[in-house]
Amino acid sequence: MLVNETKLRVQYYETDQMGVVHHSNYVRYFEVGRTEFMRRIGLSYKKCEDSGVIMPITNVEVRYFYPAYYDDIICIKSHIKEMPKARVTFFIEIYNEQGKLLANGTTTLAFVNKETGRPQRVPETMMKILSEYFKNDISS
Amino acid sequence: MLVNETKLRVQYYETDQMGVVHHSNYVRYFEVGRTEFMRRIGLSYKKCEDSGVIMPITNVEVRYFYPAYYDDIICIKSHIKEMPKARVTFFIEIYNEQGKLLANGTTTLAFVNKETGRPQRVPETMMKILSEYFKNDISS
Amino acid sequence: MLVNETKLRVQYYETDQMGVVHHSNYVRYFEVGRTEFMRRIGLSYKKCEDSGVIMPITNVEVRYFYPAYYDDIICIKSHIKEMPKARVTFFIEIYNEQGKLLANGTTTLAFVNKETGRPQRVPETMMKILSEYFKNDISS
Amino acid sequence: MLVNETKLRVQYYETDQMGVVHHSNYVRYFEVGRTEFMRRIGLSYKKCEDSGVIMPITNVEVRYFYPAYYDDIICIKSHIKEMPKARVTFFIEIYNEQGKLLANGTTTLAFVNKETGRPQRVPETMMKILSEYFKNDISS
Repeated sequence: MLVNETKLRVQYYETDQMGVVHHSNYVRYFEVGRTEFMRRIGLSYKKCEDSGVIMPITNVEVRYFYPAYYDDIICIKSHIKEMPKARVTFFIEIYNEQGKLLANGTTTLAFVNKETGRPQRVPETMMKILSEYFKNDISS
Repeated sequence: MLVNETKLRVQYYETDQMGVVHHSNYVRYFEVGRTEFMRRIGLSYKKCEDSGVIMPITNVEVRYFYPAYYDDIICIKSHIKEMPKARVTFFIEIYNEQGKLLANGTTTLAFVNKETGRPQRVPETMMKILSEYFKNDISS
Repeated sequence: MLVNETKLRVQYYETDQMGVVHHSNYVRYFEVGRTEFMRRIGLSYKKCEDSGVIMPITNVEVRYFYPAYYDDIICIKSHIKEMPKARVTFFIEIYNEQGKLLANGTTTLAFVNKETGRPQRVPETMMKILSEYFKNDISS
Repeated sequence: MLVNETKLRVQYYETDQMGVVHHSNYVRYFEVGRTEFMRRIGLSYKKCEDSGVIMPITNVEVRYFYPAYYDDIICIKSHIKEMPKARVTFFIEIYNEQGKLLANGTTTLAFVNKETGRPQRVPETMMKILSEYFKNDISS
């Protein structure tokens, strides 16, 4: 299964006085990771919102194993494990340059019609792209 | 002239690895200060937006004199000096509990029609409240 | 069991373009909640760090039910359910002014010696205060 | 004079309910810009701190001309104009992909001895690299 990798550099404003990245920023790294995963398989979240579907978060879970430090280049690995129905769950792992696992966890999002504010199922176009993704499972 | 004082406690997530509040957060403290100043004189920024006028920032300036530390209770003093026309400038000072001046500066905002996206003059209701504010100049 | 309540006002910089508080900020609200819970029962996290014990986060979980909006006053309810050993888990609920549950979840922290960087058990003084807390269980 | 360009993508968590990047984040973009400028000419801010010199901010000024939107790739152009003495001032401009100037401004930093907490002059190694930078003025 394709696991997308996004690299980014830890910024000074993300550290706290413990001398490490503040734990709340991992939730933001997760967001970067899943956005780039979607872009990679052909789904732009921006286009998704522009087409009238917003994806509010319903659940976040992060387990922290080892700190990220200022100026580190971290690698965010993101993928999904099963075809979403009412919700989609992203699995995220964050590594440092030495290959050490810093944190992992999940973010789950719902699909909501921007106009009505009501939950809806996965949009058609997303459905198509995702079934492609799961069909090509083995090869990547 | 009325100077509004807002107190808030420095949070851990606002510190950086220098062991002090990251400088970008002062711009956010300025926002808290001017919002509470407006509320104090009878102007809710939320109502302002709800009524169709948004106030994008055009200019921010911060001078930093002394750091704010984790768990400090800081005092944000906010006021305006002259009747706004196309723009309004807020003057902000931030003190710690020992009365030490930590930072000061200004934020300038424009008035923009939410629908058209075009600049506009100060809304009527704001105008009225502000002239009250300036009339009562001496007494406070 | 004592549940500490902390109220705070949602700031503009905490919203995102969905028109609600960005989900990462709840992790920060959780931090405010557990810090104030600790202060309430007589434990200052600042003093804890000053005395040589840091408390890195090992786990965060947030479930989101309903959005917080700009200018809302939210109420963060925080407590712990059992005597910590190697780790302590805080249970947090966030409500809006209408009493609607916006989010709930947990934050788990370890105890680490600041000098050695090694995990340690709950510090003595914290232990004492916490046993008081659990003894007074019923009354509050 | 060498102007360093850093590109980065606007994240969802950087937007606010006005549908644009919150103005406080430009101060963070400025930080990214000047850090990468320093790295480019051979000065790692991390190494600088590791060698015992911290650089607290003394002044920030931002002028906002046009909003940055979610998912935009912005270009941060950074340079310095004169040899620093007690302080160094970075000049920053931020453009969007259409080449539109979104914001410009400055950040000024002091040099402080990490141990003593006292101001000091520009460290030797930084001095050398910076004189190289200014000597090569014309060619870049």
